[in-house]
Amino acid sequence: MLENPPKLLSTHSFETVKMTKTWGQSAGKTCKTFTRILRDYTFGDFLMNLEVQWIVGFVDGEGCFHIGINKNEKTKYGIQIQPEFSVVQHQRDIQILHALKKYFQCGQVRPNHGERYMFRVRGHENLRDRILPFFELHKLKTKKRIDFEKFRDVVRMMEKGDHLTEDGIAKIRTIQETMNRKGKKSKI
Amino acid sequence: MLENPPKLLSTHSFETVKMTKTWGQSAGKTCKTFTRILRDYTFGDFLMNLEVQWIVGFVDGEGCFHIGINKNEKTKYGIQIQPEFSVVQHQRDIQILHALKKYFQCGQVRPNHGERYMFRVRGHENLRDRILPFFELHKLKTKKRIDFEKFRDVVRMMEKGDHLTEDGIAKIRTIQETMNRKGKKSKI
Repeated sequence: MLENPPKLLSTHSFETVKMTKTWGQSAGKTCKTFTRILRDYTFGDFLMNLEVQWIVGFVDGEGCFHIGINKNEKTKYGIQIQPEFSVVQHQRDIQILHALKKYFQCGQVRPNHGERYMFRVRGHENLRDRILPFFELHKLKTKKRIDFEKFRDVVRMMEKGDHLTEDGIAKIRTIQETMNRKGKKSKI
Repeated sequence: MLENPPKLLSTHSFETVKMTKTWGQSAGKTCKTFTRILRDYTFGDFLMNLEVQWIVGFVDGEGCFHIGINKNEKTKYGIQIQPEFSVVQHQRDIQILHALKKYFQCGQVRPNHGERYMFRVRGHENLRDRILPFFELHKLKTKKRIDFEKFRDVVRMMEKGDHLTEDGIAKIRTIQETMNRKGKKSKI
């Protein structure tokens, strides 16, 4: 589980030490390391350690578990199911999104609407191996937990290939329509 | 500090035991205790323990540190300064607000707009003794921390009586105008 800081952090720290020792060298690897450190330092996530319960509280407030149902002519039934975990913040707090990405070791930080940025995790393995275990072990406290549980159920159905059958798509659609409190139906 | 569950919780538990032993009695104190327990049980906050870092994360997402500047003819300069810490949630998550109230041992849970409720802490002693120490010890991670620090400064200025002088009110107004990211000026 992700109770402890991910392994990547050790490598990251090691690279930092290496970089300071080789400051001024222009060999490719060093340059990349320097760029990465500079980027991380700029965003301030070097300094930011996220505690497990802080993440739970923040996601209780700001997180979203969403099941996208999109048109895709390449699939048998013309429908693609796309589960997505996301957190949106104003650009002033982009370092939080990078810190979440670092913690979960997956996902992307990308522009959202206006001055907002989004940390977004898609992809079956990322969701199954990193997002679901975290929120199963560390329960959300708001009613968003119910959305998470439906989200988890859909990811598990997809593990069994249900999203590739007409019946499975119908079931996923039924679940999706009850999520995220707005009662909005998928337009497709 | 509030690192550990507040003392009230012990009393609360003790009262619970007492109530079950005296079930059916109608003496005033027992009745009040029963009503309180029933209310707490209904809101489910009996079962909800808020971890310190969960509170920090949740407030990073949902909390607000606000300095109200209101007309009040009874004051020397016709102005009342009212600092307020608040968290607003949809009624579906009202138990979170009651759990916060229980944790901080102060404040009120009251209706807000539409189907939303607010946990609100006002009052100099509550803010000085319960809210400020908590967020000074457990730092917010988002830029909301800057709002908190301005809020703290105003509460400390009020401790010295600055809000009762023309110069102090002007300083507080200047601070307030830079808070909560909206750049809105007080209308008064």
